[in-house]
Amino acid sequence: MTYKNPSITVDCVVFDDRDRLLLIRRRNPPFAGQFALPGGFVDYGETTEAAARRELLEETGLTAKDLRLIGVYSDPKRDPRGHTISIAYLVVIEDGAPTAGDDATEAQFRVDWRELELAFDHNEIVRDAVRMRRLKR
Amino acid sequence: MTYKNPSITVDCVVFDDRDRLLLIRRRNPPFAGQFALPGGFVDYGETTEAAARRELLEETGLTAKDLRLIGVYSDPKRDPRGHTISIAYLVVIEDGAPTAGDDATEAQFRVDWRELELAFDHNEIVRDAVRMRRLKR
Repeated sequence: MTYKNPSITVDCVVFDDRDRLLLIRRRNPPFAGQFALPGGFVDYGETTEAAARRELLEETGLTAKDLRLIGVYSDPKRDPRGHTISIAYLVVIEDGAPTAGDDATEAQFRVDWRELELAFDHNEIVRDAVRMRRLKR
Repeated sequence: MTYKNPSITVDCVVFDDRDRLLLIRRRNPPFAGQFALPGGFVDYGETTEAAARRELLEETGLTAKDLRLIGVYSDPKRDPRGHTISIAYLVVIEDGAPTAGDDATEAQFRVDWRELELAFDHNEIVRDAVRMRRLKR
């Protein structure tokens, strides 16, 4: 399988108990300096769940306890670098404060997430996550 | 993005109104000659929903009306060819009888699907689809 195919990423939606959303500030293009969900590319040989746990830990220092699938985001135009399909998870974490690492220059729970323009289609992912939390409670 | 990454496929779970499951018989390895869900690789530049519709039409001649995400299947061992991540959809189709095409030598609604050993992890996908139908009704 050597033909060109879409790349796969994961994104993590994490709320704390005060309904603040965990966001990182991107170190690298595209959307450098902008807020985004923690996430990144799935490695060959890695499950999407493992990739979500790894990226969350690398970028925010936080450990995932539970993951629930939000959806699959595959619009070919969602990433200016090329066709990237993202698998998004609603993640419950173990207690702890975020510390930025890897591709993130900041990692924080933000109270103002509703007003922020996030990178990629992350506003849409968050909207779907919010709808899912409302339905399942 | 030229490094080796997992490939992405889609699979379609389609039941008719008599609770029979749409299955194809695979023309090519792996699992040649075995029953499987209709599906295949997502093309670069194609959404996963469009890929599911296209593969369903190519392999069975049937047209998808509505798609609902079942889950994401990413175990690196699920495909003997290499790491393939599948996005599975529960699909409602327009009326019509299946006719085999493309990578399928047969396409039929099978009443005995509970007894069949399907290719890849398709038995697991069907089990999850059945659970989802039960919850949402």
